[in-house]
Amino acid sequence: MRFSIKKSLILATLATIGYANVIPKSTSTTTTTATILSDSEIEDVNVSLSNNEVEVLDSSSENEDLGSNISNNEIKELDTVDNICKDNNITEDKVYKCASGEVIKVNDQSVKEESDKSSIYLDIFKQFNFGNKITYVIGHKSPDADAVGSAIAFADLLNKIDIKAQAVVSAPVNQETNYFLNRFGIKSPEVLSNAEGKQIVLVDHSNYLQAIDGMKSARIVGIIDHHNVGDVSSEEPIYARFAYVGAAASIIYLIYNELNVPISKETAQIMLMSILSDTENLTSINTRKLDRDAYAALKIISGIEDLDSIYEGMVDARSSYGDMTDEQIFKTDYKEYNINGKSFCVGNVNAYGEQKIKEMADRMYNYMESNYEKSGFNMMFSMVQNVKAKENENNTYLIGYGEDAIEILKTAFSDGEFDGKYYKAKDVLSRKTHIIPPITKYINEKY
Amino acid sequence: MRFSIKKSLILATLATIGYANVIPKSTSTTTTTATILSDSEIEDVNVSLSNNEVEVLDSSSENEDLGSNISNNEIKELDTVDNICKDNNITEDKVYKCASGEVIKVNDQSVKEESDKSSIYLDIFKQFNFGNKITYVIGHKSPDADAVGSAIAFADLLNKIDIKAQAVVSAPVNQETNYFLNRFGIKSPEVLSNAEGKQIVLVDHSNYLQAIDGMKSARIVGIIDHHNVGDVSSEEPIYARFAYVGAAASIIYLIYNELNVPISKETAQIMLMSILSDTENLTSINTRKLDRDAYAALKIISGIEDLDSIYEGMVDARSSYGDMTDEQIFKTDYKEYNINGKSFCVGNVNAYGEQKIKEMADRMYNYMESNYEKSGFNMMFSMVQNVKAKENENNTYLIGYGEDAIEILKTAFSDGEFDGKYYKAKDVLSRKTHIIPPITKYINEKY
Repeated sequence: MRFSIKKSLILATLATIGYANVIPKSTSTTTTTATILSDSEIEDVNVSLSNNEVEVLDSSSENEDLGSNISNNEIKELDTVDNICKDNNITEDKVYKCASGEVIKVNDQSVKEESDKSSIYLDIFKQFNFGNKITYVIGHKSPDADAVGSAIAFADLLNKIDIKAQAVVSAPVNQETNYFLNRFGIKSPEVLSNAEGKQIVLVDHSNYLQAIDGMKSARIVGIIDHHNVGDVSSEEPIYARFAYVGAAASIIYLIYNELNVPISKETAQIMLMSILSDTENLTSINTRKLDRDAYAALKIISGIEDLDSIYEGMVDARSSYGDMTDEQIFKTDYKEYNINGKSFCVGNVNAYGEQKIKEMADRMYNYMESNYEKSGFNMMFSMVQNVKAKENENNTYLIGYGEDAIEILKTAFSDGEFDGKYYKAKDVLSRKTHIIPPITKYINEKY
Repeated sequence: MRFSIKKSLILATLATIGYANVIPKSTSTTTTTATILSDSEIEDVNVSLSNNEVEVLDSSSENEDLGSNISNNEIKELDTVDNICKDNNITEDKVYKCASGEVIKVNDQSVKEESDKSSIYLDIFKQFNFGNKITYVIGHKSPDADAVGSAIAFADLLNKIDIKAQAVVSAPVNQETNYFLNRFGIKSPEVLSNAEGKQIVLVDHSNYLQAIDGMKSARIVGIIDHHNVGDVSSEEPIYARFAYVGAAASIIYLIYNELNVPISKETAQIMLMSILSDTENLTSINTRKLDRDAYAALKIISGIEDLDSIYEGMVDARSSYGDMTDEQIFKTDYKEYNINGKSFCVGNVNAYGEQKIKEMADRMYNYMESNYEKSGFNMMFSMVQNVKAKENENNTYLIGYGEDAIEILKTAFSDGEFDGKYYKAKDVLSRKTHIIPPITKYINEKY
């Protein structure tokens, strides 16, 4: 059995574990190891991987032949780091440091354990005082596929590194998530409705308004989010990771890799649910290389072959509101905000085809009109969108209620048109990318 | 020339680039690549690195001998991924995906460029819309070694990935930083006193109270911090990284490595300044493996041999207040906080030996007593600490002013003693680890 990997992979690999920075090519005392990095030299290098060690032999050296026909016994007779140090007038201490713990003394178990780059990442978690309490991992209110999937995936990761954790949800999961969980026989996490006194990692949100009650009285021990940085703060230094990628679950995939923790089949499935939903099957404008790589890797681990049809099923479930009331529909995928004392909410509703969009937009408008006064919000918004976008149709109707909301519909967006009641756009819009920033900007400039 | 690297390094390396998760051992369609990971199989594997590709040959296969005596010409005649796919009834598409882009088709340049793990990290930065404006990277008010060093290092990193950036400081740098910059002939960054309308990355802080004026009207495009998550928020999804490690500069070192960007000699020096100061030369309780690894690697790149004596010089500079006024000393290393509407400030002052600590504590007490009313703070604190901690001495005097502050000194700390005026402790205390969390907890419980 055999296969090929390009040289660039090994170079990238060595760079990944720190050689790019650890070993400066120009410092003469470290030329022993500099050959690993030098492009011109590496052409002639042979690497042999065997029982005890890897030998890298420069073909220009006198030892060229040793690398070409190697066995376990022969390797044991080769120079150790000690001898290299002596040969090059480098103290052992320096060799250890110049390779940042990566070039190590043979048979030294304690040093060997330092050699794994993932231990740097792991150490950050392990040195944090999680105490004996269970850590609850939870997404935002109105639990969608990414909020739920990220909570399950991150709780699983914490447990795998021996930090006691449990995924929870703020309320029963939405239709799309429910469809996926049912299809794969995965149990929905339990509901946690108040965070007071609890130890919490927030995923897929970082705003108190989007968090369950009691979050200000919780011990926040971690945040993973791909939205704007919100107002949730922590009492102590914690681990928090924000990146503008398609899905929060993709950030968690990256953390799994950094920690070198294997992903179970079920967790891979659940992370795919998140990525499929939040990147719209990798077609959303927010989709990053990270999302695509996570998707590809998780597809294999999950054993799911027919991701496209799974996604179709999720999309259909999205617009299946059955006999839900207007209020239930408005709040299915719904977030609240408060910027400089101005409060607003943005719901997202799905429909199929412009005629259905128009009907649903009218229902949402009527709901907002009837409830604006008692809601207490300065502005209410609802996005009604085509779940399967079509060319030449208006795929988004954005509805606003409240004086400032109308002004925003009139002035804050481009590419679409305001028809006196709705802002209509050809594109499917992302709440965090297209809607929240212009509203925030409007408020910041006016108030 | 030759040297040894342990097998575990290569295994860790492969894991680092994603093989642990990408290639499940149990899935039969991917056994072609699964041999890389299997511990029992790897004993017998030979790897040869040459001009065009790396060959991994399982010794149990019929091709065993090919790996043992290899040249450029021979490699070109070996199987490509295409043939492996055919041999194993795997479509090329699947092989590409199962290795997450890492096992690649030979001679396909576009796919090859996807093969570098660092491109995932880079993509996150490059897809963000930094626009044409310059990005200012800035630390907190009263610029110390980590705030200044992190700003310089992160601005340099952004420039290296073609994002136009400039390090700035909120005010002239403190004595310790000044000592280091002078010693290495490094220019201090320019002062930026107002962030309004500017594009900003915050380093080493995430609280508006610790940020320069106008931060609420800035476009926040990034945050790197190792303190508690503060109240700074962003309008749009951004890159932000919080980790409980010794120095913010160590997080930046990690990001350099993730992006595979080489660190220049001067930037390595400046990052060492940060790490030396914030980890107290790797002795602080907050020191993590990341800090130690960064220190070791940066030491080589920086070319600085005598780090211990450099650190001694920094420590001496710390307590050199010359003819500064009490107010200037109080505010040299100084941070403001507001928790649930209760405002307080915590200064940190250095002295050498308990007698000097006592004298300095009295000066700070008198300053706080005279200025408490007009300051508007609910509480004022000052930590006076021994820069070179001694056994059996009280190395920290913590001074509080305001009713709640005295209550906190009496009840919120352990291990030391309250003498009716000062809280005295044997240990040197960290503001973010030992002081802020109990104060925050006290306020949250009482108000």
